[in-house]
Amino acid sequence: MAGAIDFYFDFTSPYGYIASEHIDALAAKHRRQVDWHPILLGFIFKQTGQVAPMQVPLKGEYSLYDMKRSARYHQVALNFPAEFPKMTLTAARGFYWLKDQDPALAHSFAQRVYRAYFVDNRDVGSTDVIMEIAAEVGIDRAAFAAALQSDPVKDRFKTENDRAIARGVFGSPYFIVDNEPFWGADRMMHLEHWLKTGGF
Amino acid sequence: MAGAIDFYFDFTSPYGYIASEHIDALAAKHRRQVDWHPILLGFIFKQTGQVAPMQVPLKGEYSLYDMKRSARYHQVALNFPAEFPKMTLTAARGFYWLKDQDPALAHSFAQRVYRAYFVDNRDVGSTDVIMEIAAEVGIDRAAFAAALQSDPVKDRFKTENDRAIARGVFGSPYFIVDNEPFWGADRMMHLEHWLKTGGF
Repeated sequence: MAGAIDFYFDFTSPYGYIASEHIDALAAKHRRQVDWHPILLGFIFKQTGQVAPMQVPLKGEYSLYDMKRSARYHQVALNFPAEFPKMTLTAARGFYWLKDQDPALAHSFAQRVYRAYFVDNRDVGSTDVIMEIAAEVGIDRAAFAAALQSDPVKDRFKTENDRAIARGVFGSPYFIVDNEPFWGADRMMHLEHWLKTGGF
Repeated sequence: MAGAIDFYFDFTSPYGYIASEHIDALAAKHRRQVDWHPILLGFIFKQTGQVAPMQVPLKGEYSLYDMKRSARYHQVALNFPAEFPKMTLTAARGFYWLKDQDPALAHSFAQRVYRAYFVDNRDVGSTDVIMEIAAEVGIDRAAFAAALQSDPVKDRFKTENDRAIARGVFGSPYFIVDNEPFWGADRMMHLEHWLKTGGF
């Protein structure tokens, strides 16, 4: 099987959420696997000197509008959260801890976190809520709570985030396949064309 | 006939150029006209506090790559200019002066300026080159030169640019139709879906 699609996303990113609802099916159609990598845009923006689009005059207002319309365009359910964005470090740390033990469970957890935020408007910035979500997908609560406090788990996330930056990741969603980078939910069409044609 | 599509673009914008090669056909398919409006991102970025993507670490490198790949994806000829970006105030001023007299000629001029820059790599920041391009599409050289020096022509551009900002335009290309805004060459698909469905 050809190489996996690396899928980088922040749990607070609406375009990342939209992509998360489509990327697995897109990949399967072209016999690729998807390797999910949560990142933290807050850290990345600080390192690259970026300003969140929502904070730019005119662009901010448009972006909020575009996020909602993009969800409709891509037929993804979205109830835009009243509190936006969220700092999603806990979810990201928990994800990698899970991934090392059970990648399929980590994937279910990630999808549930995204839907919890963008459909059910739960506070995914809260450690308690992340623990609840973990419990809902069958993760042992005590083990998860302990992991979140452990230094190796904290370091693991930091290493992953730094590695993403080293690979050029500066936004969410960001895909890399066959060393080809694609930024944005709107670039899934380019990505699909790439997979279909073997490069263009 | 339903309302026109307002098409805002900077002559130095690669994504604006890509859009310019497709927007007329897209509009015609849905029985709409296109009203072309050159703007200056330099002025708009200053007012909205934006930084050009090319100047952002990681994003800059990716953007250059994405511009070229987007041109291939949209099947638009592109020889990326060695000198980029350009300050295209002269072309924009000339366009509006022409538009008041002969909109079809202004349209030909605009397309030729875009191709001169993104295909033939001519220096569209130079007044001499803009005068040459004007002559090539049959514009009277002396009248054009005089117009470029006149205060009403300078004011006309400023008014157009300010009006664009007042309508929320913060990037290139930017489309407004039926009061619905679309930013980016990649949003032409949303725009087309909008025209097809009457809103979604």
